[in-house]
Amino acid sequence: MITIALDTMGADFSPHNEVSGAIEVIKETAGRFKILLTGKKDLLEKELQKHAGYSKEAIEILDASEIITMDDEPVQALRQKRNSSIVVALEALKAKRADAFVSAGNTGAVMSGGTLELGRIPGVSRPMIGAQFPRSTGGFTLVFDVGATVDAKPHWLKEYGIMGSIYAKTIFGLADPTVALLSVGEEKTKGNDLVLESTKLLEKTDINFIGNVEGRDVLNGKVDIILCDGFTGNIILKFAESVLPSLKSRVKKYAEGGFVSKLKAAITASVLRASLKDFDYQEHGGVPLLGVNGVVIIGHGSSSPRAFRTMLLRAEELVKKDLCGTIKNALAKAQEKIPK
Amino acid sequence: MITIALDTMGADFSPHNEVSGAIEVIKETAGRFKILLTGKKDLLEKELQKHAGYSKEAIEILDASEIITMDDEPVQALRQKRNSSIVVALEALKAKRADAFVSAGNTGAVMSGGTLELGRIPGVSRPMIGAQFPRSTGGFTLVFDVGATVDAKPHWLKEYGIMGSIYAKTIFGLADPTVALLSVGEEKTKGNDLVLESTKLLEKTDINFIGNVEGRDVLNGKVDIILCDGFTGNIILKFAESVLPSLKSRVKKYAEGGFVSKLKAAITASVLRASLKDFDYQEHGGVPLLGVNGVVIIGHGSSSPRAFRTMLLRAEELVKKDLCGTIKNALAKAQEKIPK
Repeated sequence: MITIALDTMGADFSPHNEVSGAIEVIKETAGRFKILLTGKKDLLEKELQKHAGYSKEAIEILDASEIITMDDEPVQALRQKRNSSIVVALEALKAKRADAFVSAGNTGAVMSGGTLELGRIPGVSRPMIGAQFPRSTGGFTLVFDVGATVDAKPHWLKEYGIMGSIYAKTIFGLADPTVALLSVGEEKTKGNDLVLESTKLLEKTDINFIGNVEGRDVLNGKVDIILCDGFTGNIILKFAESVLPSLKSRVKKYAEGGFVSKLKAAITASVLRASLKDFDYQEHGGVPLLGVNGVVIIGHGSSSPRAFRTMLLRAEELVKKDLCGTIKNALAKAQEKIPK
Repeated sequence: MITIALDTMGADFSPHNEVSGAIEVIKETAGRFKILLTGKKDLLEKELQKHAGYSKEAIEILDASEIITMDDEPVQALRQKRNSSIVVALEALKAKRADAFVSAGNTGAVMSGGTLELGRIPGVSRPMIGAQFPRSTGGFTLVFDVGATVDAKPHWLKEYGIMGSIYAKTIFGLADPTVALLSVGEEKTKGNDLVLESTKLLEKTDINFIGNVEGRDVLNGKVDIILCDGFTGNIILKFAESVLPSLKSRVKKYAEGGFVSKLKAAITASVLRASLKDFDYQEHGGVPLLGVNGVVIIGHGSSSPRAFRTMLLRAEELVKKDLCGTIKNALAKAQEKIPK
C-alpha cells in the first residue's frame, strides 16, 4: 500500500476536485492507496459527505488551517504559513508518513517548499519541472526545465538530461529515450554559450543525447526529451498553452458570419476537440518536481477530478519504481565519469 | 521613384516567385518603382519572357553568377561568393544605386551581409530582426529579436525597444505602441538578470514601456511589441511556425475515420484556412533587418509572388518614411538621456 499526501486547498476548484479524484482512485484500486488530505478539516469533512461507497480507512484528514493562495509570494508564504496545506503535506512526506505529495496549488510554493523541506537528491544542483508537449505523431515530448529555475548552467542541463531520461523511462516505458538541447539551429556550432558548453557535457554522459533541436521540433516528435533553461522553457510552455484558447476564439469569431458559418464552426469545434485532446494541458495529470528527495507531482490550478486521479496514479508509479533512488544512482555514476 | 534591389536566387521558388512579384508591383504602381533583379542573367531573361504588358524600363538585371544557398554557412559564403545575388544587391545599396534590398534567400547571409556591407546606424549595438505574431484580437504583435544575435545585453534590448517602436509607428501607424519584455511573470521582480537589468533601462526611455509579459501574451494582443534575446525569440518563432502544420496533420488524421469524419475534416480545414489566414507566416511579406544603414527586408524562403509584392511595397514605405534616419535620431536622443 502507498500513502500519498494530497493538498486539497489553493487550487481553482478546491477541495471539490481533489476529493473527487481521491475517492475515484480509492474505489478503483481497492486497498492500494491511503490518501492523506491536507486542508481545512471542516471543509473536507463536508466534502467527503458527498461521497459514499468508498473505504473510509483509505482517507485521513491532516488538518491545515492556512491556505497558500495562487497570488502569495512563494518563499514568504512558506515561511509565514507553516500550518498551510502545502507545508503540512510536505512535513508528512519528510516524516515518512507519506510516500508522495500531489498538489495543484501555488506552483512556486510547491517547488520552493519541496526543495526546502525535502532537500535535494545528492548530485542535483537544481530541481526541475517538466512539461509534456503533445506530438503530431502521437505521444509526448518532455521539456525540462519549464520554470523551476530561470537561469541554467551547463552542468545543471547535464543533470536535467540524466533525470529527464530516467523519468521518461519510468513513466513512458521508453528503453533509451532520445535527449536534445533546444537551440536556434541543429548544427553543433549554433546556439548561445549555455548550449555550446552543455553539449560538451551531455556528450560525455550515458544518455542518448542526439544534439540540438529547434523550436519547431517541440511538437513534431523528433525527440523524446528537450532540455533548456527554465526561462526559455517557461515561455514556450505558456505560449503553447495559449494556442488552443487563441484558436477557439478565432473559430468563435468565424461563427458570427451567419447560420452556415455557425454550423461549420460547430463542426470545426468538435473536430478540434477530438483531435487536440492531448493539447489540453489540464488533462495531462501534472508534472513531477524532479531532483528533490521525494515524489512530488505538481498539477495545473484548474485540474479536474480526472487529472487528480492521473496524478495520484502517477505518484504511485514513481514511488514503486523508486524514481528518487534511480536518479541518485545515475547522478553518482555520472559524477564519477564527468567530474565538474 | 524608388529603386529596389531584389535578390532573385537562393529561395525555394527562385527566380519565378521573385520575378512574378516584381512584375505585379510594377504593373500596379506605374512609374513608382525601379527594380534591380540580382541573379543569373540568363535565367532572369528567360523568366522575364514569361511576362508581358509591363514597363521594361522599370526592370534592370544586375548579373550575379553565384548563389548563396540555404545551406551555406553565412559568413564564409559572403566572403567566398563575392559575385552572389546577395552581395551584388548589397553593393548596389551601398553605392546608393538602390534605396532598399529585398531577399528571401539565406537569412543568416542577408543579416550578416547587411551588417558587414552597410554598417550599423550610429547608436545601434546589434541589428535585429522581428516577427509578426497574429493576435486573436486582430492585427499583429511584433517580437524583436528573433534571431539576429543569440545573446543580448540590457542596452541592446533598450535599443531594440526604441527601434521596434519606430518600426511599429511607421508600418502599423500606431501613435504610441506599447512595448514589453518577455519574461516568466508579470511582476517586475520576476525574470532572469537580463530582464531585470533591461527593465531599468527601458523605464528611462521615451517609449511606451509597460513592463513584463509572459509567453501567453504573444498571441493575445496585450501589447504591440515584445522584446527578448534572439535565442528566445527564435525558439518562440519556430515553435509558432510549427503549430499550423501540426494542426493540419491532426485534422488529416481525423479524416481517416471514415466518410463522415472525412467530411467534417474538410469543413474544419476550410474554417481553419479562413480564420487562421494571418497565421500563415509566408504571407506576412517579410521582416526588416533593423539597425543597419539601409532598408533591408528579409522574406521566408518559400515566399509567394504575393509575399514579394508585399515586401517591395513595404520597402518603399520604409524608404519614403526615412526609417533609418528616424532610428538614428531617436537613438541619439536616447543616448543623451541614458548614457551607457
